[in-house]
Amino acid sequence: MMKRRVSRQIKIGGVAIGGGAPIVVQSMTSTDTRDVRSTIKQIKELEEVDCELVRVAVPDAEAARAIADIKKGIGIPLIADIHFDYRLALMALEAGADGLRLNPGNIVEAEKVKAVVLAAKERGIPIRIGVNAGSLPNAGNPKLSVAERMVEAALEQMRLLESLDFDLIKVSLKAFDVPTMVEANESLAKKMPYPIHLGVTEAGTPKRGVIRSAVGIGTLLYLGIGDTIRVSLTAHPREEVIAGYEILKSLDLRQHGPVLVSCPSCGRAEVDIVKLAEEVEEQLIKINKPVKVAVMGCVVNGPGEAKDADVGIACGKGKGVIFRKGKKVGTVAEKDFVTALMREVEEIIN
Amino acid sequence: MMKRRVSRQIKIGGVAIGGGAPIVVQSMTSTDTRDVRSTIKQIKELEEVDCELVRVAVPDAEAARAIADIKKGIGIPLIADIHFDYRLALMALEAGADGLRLNPGNIVEAEKVKAVVLAAKERGIPIRIGVNAGSLPNAGNPKLSVAERMVEAALEQMRLLESLDFDLIKVSLKAFDVPTMVEANESLAKKMPYPIHLGVTEAGTPKRGVIRSAVGIGTLLYLGIGDTIRVSLTAHPREEVIAGYEILKSLDLRQHGPVLVSCPSCGRAEVDIVKLAEEVEEQLIKINKPVKVAVMGCVVNGPGEAKDADVGIACGKGKGVIFRKGKKVGTVAEKDFVTALMREVEEIIN
Repeated sequence: MMKRRVSRQIKIGGVAIGGGAPIVVQSMTSTDTRDVRSTIKQIKELEEVDCELVRVAVPDAEAARAIADIKKGIGIPLIADIHFDYRLALMALEAGADGLRLNPGNIVEAEKVKAVVLAAKERGIPIRIGVNAGSLPNAGNPKLSVAERMVEAALEQMRLLESLDFDLIKVSLKAFDVPTMVEANESLAKKMPYPIHLGVTEAGTPKRGVIRSAVGIGTLLYLGIGDTIRVSLTAHPREEVIAGYEILKSLDLRQHGPVLVSCPSCGRAEVDIVKLAEEVEEQLIKINKPVKVAVMGCVVNGPGEAKDADVGIACGKGKGVIFRKGKKVGTVAEKDFVTALMREVEEIIN
Repeated sequence: MMKRRVSRQIKIGGVAIGGGAPIVVQSMTSTDTRDVRSTIKQIKELEEVDCELVRVAVPDAEAARAIADIKKGIGIPLIADIHFDYRLALMALEAGADGLRLNPGNIVEAEKVKAVVLAAKERGIPIRIGVNAGSLPNAGNPKLSVAERMVEAALEQMRLLESLDFDLIKVSLKAFDVPTMVEANESLAKKMPYPIHLGVTEAGTPKRGVIRSAVGIGTLLYLGIGDTIRVSLTAHPREEVIAGYEILKSLDLRQHGPVLVSCPSCGRAEVDIVKLAEEVEEQLIKINKPVKVAVMGCVVNGPGEAKDADVGIACGKGKGVIFRKGKKVGTVAEKDFVTALMREVEEIIN
C-alpha cells in the first residue's frame, strides 16, 4: 500500500501544504500579469475548477506591483514566480504575494537571496526553491547526473535559507525527462524534511502532455512523494487543474466530482458505448459531488466488473440493466439509457 | 535509474515479449468479430499507428471461426479473447489465433482449462492468464485484499498450466483502481518468471482514461515491471495505441515519431504559444522519425530549458530564435515560425 512521506507543513495564504494535508492542486496564469483585469478573469476561471493555489509570472516591476490589485479580485492564494532579478521578489512581497518561487539557477548570488529571505521571513511568507533541469546553475560537479545536479542545487539553496533561520520552505525539481524528474525527487525526499511540489516541465499539448505529467507525477505520488502538484500544459490553465485532479483521483488521493468507469467496448458490445460514455461524461460535468458511475458494454461482465460503482448501466441489445453497487435495480430501453442513469445519479447524491 | 525486471521471453506470432525485448504496444478491436470486413479494416487502422498485437473478442462460435478469415487480411499477430466457454478457445486455435487470453475468473474448471492448454501446447501458442479485479473467481480467502486475490487467482491458474508442462505464459492483473493494480503487479512480479501485460480496466473516455492508464502503467514501468501494455479507452482503439506509445516515450522506453516539448506559456510569453504549439503538433503528425522539437514562449529561458531538443524555437515579440541542441542558428519573423521550424526538422531527419 502507498505510504505517504510526511513532510513539515507550511501554509500559503490559508492553504496547508505537507504534513498530512490533502495534496494541493496548483496552476499558473498564462495572461500578462500587468494586465490586471485579464489575470483576475483567468484566476476566477481557475477557481471555478477548484484550483487551490495560483502562480503568476513576474517579469518586471509593473507585474510585481500588479499583484496588489490582482489580489483584491481573487479568492485563492497567489505565488509570485521570480527569475533573474531578486528585486522583483522584494516588490512582490511588498505587493502582498502569499508565496514566492525562486529559481536557484538564475538567482545565484547569496547576498541577493538573503535580502529576499529576510523580507519573506518578516512577513511569514514561504519560498519555493524551484529547480528546473534546463536552467541549472553552472557550478556543480560535471560528473553528476542531471538528477543529482538538480538535488545539489536545491540543497545548496536550502542550506542558505536555513542559515538565515528560515524554514518556510517548499522544493520542486522539474524536468521534461520523466525518469530524471522521478529519480531527482526520490533522492531529494530522503534528504530533507520540507514539502515537495511536483511537476513535469514543458510537458506539451494536452493530448500528449497529460500523459507525460501523469506518468511522472503519478509515479512519485504512488511512491508517497509529493505535497502539491502542477500539470504544465500548453493550453488554458483550466486544463492543468482538471488533469491534476484526475491524477489524484486515480490514486484515491483526492475526491473531486464524479468518476466515470467505462469499458473500452469490444466485439461483445451491442450498443455504441463510445457515444453513450461521451453523453454520460457530458451530463456528469454538472455534478460536483463524488460519485462513481459505470457505463459497461455488456450485460454479462458489466455489473460484476463495475460492482464498486455507485451506479451503472450494463447495456445489451436495445435495453440496459441499471445497477447500484453491482446489484440490478431495473431495466430500461436504449432511448432512456442516459436519463435513467442520471436519475439514479441524482438520487444517490441527494 | 530504472532497472527492468527480466522475464522469460515468449513470442506471439513473430512478436517477442519479455526477456529484454522492447515493450510491445497492443490494442483490442471494438468491431463485431463476426463482421470480418469491419474487423480487418479496424486492424489495418491500428497497424497504421504501429499497433503490434491485436486482440479480438470471441463471444461465440461464429466469431471464433471468423478469425481464420481475419488473419488473411492483417499483418500483425492476433489474440483471441476468451471468457466463459473453453470450447471457443479450442475453435480459435483451430482458426489460427496467434495467442489466447483466458480469464481464470470465468473458466474455472481444471479439466476445461487442461483441454485448452494441451491444444495450445500442440501448436506452440502462448496463453495469457488475464485476471480482472471485477471478475475474480469466487473461491479465495476473503481476508485477502483484492490485489492479493488477483495474484492468487493468477498463480493458481499458472500452476495448472505448469503441471501440464506448458510455459508459454503471459500474465495480466487489471483493475480500475490504480493502487490495487500497481500493488498486485508488484507482488506478482516477484513471484513468477513470465512476462507481464499491463493495463487499467474500464479506464474511461480519452480525456480522463489516458491519465488513469498513464499513472498505473507508467508507475509499474518506472518500477521496471511490464513487457507489453494496453491502454483501455472508451474510444476508437487507435487512441489506445497512440497513448501507449506516449507512455513509453515519456519513460524513454521506446522511440516513436517526434516528441514535442512545449512550455505552458505564462506572463512572460509574447506570442500565442498555445496556437503555435498546436500548429506545430499538427505538422509533426506527418513525421514518423524520432525527433525532439521544442516550442518555447520566451527567448530568455527557451533555448536553455530545451537544450536537449534537436530543434526548437524560442519566441519573442514578433520574432523567434531557431535553435538546434540549445544553440542559436537563426532568427525568423512571426509569420514564418512554423515553416522555419519545420524546415529544420526536415533537414535533421533527412
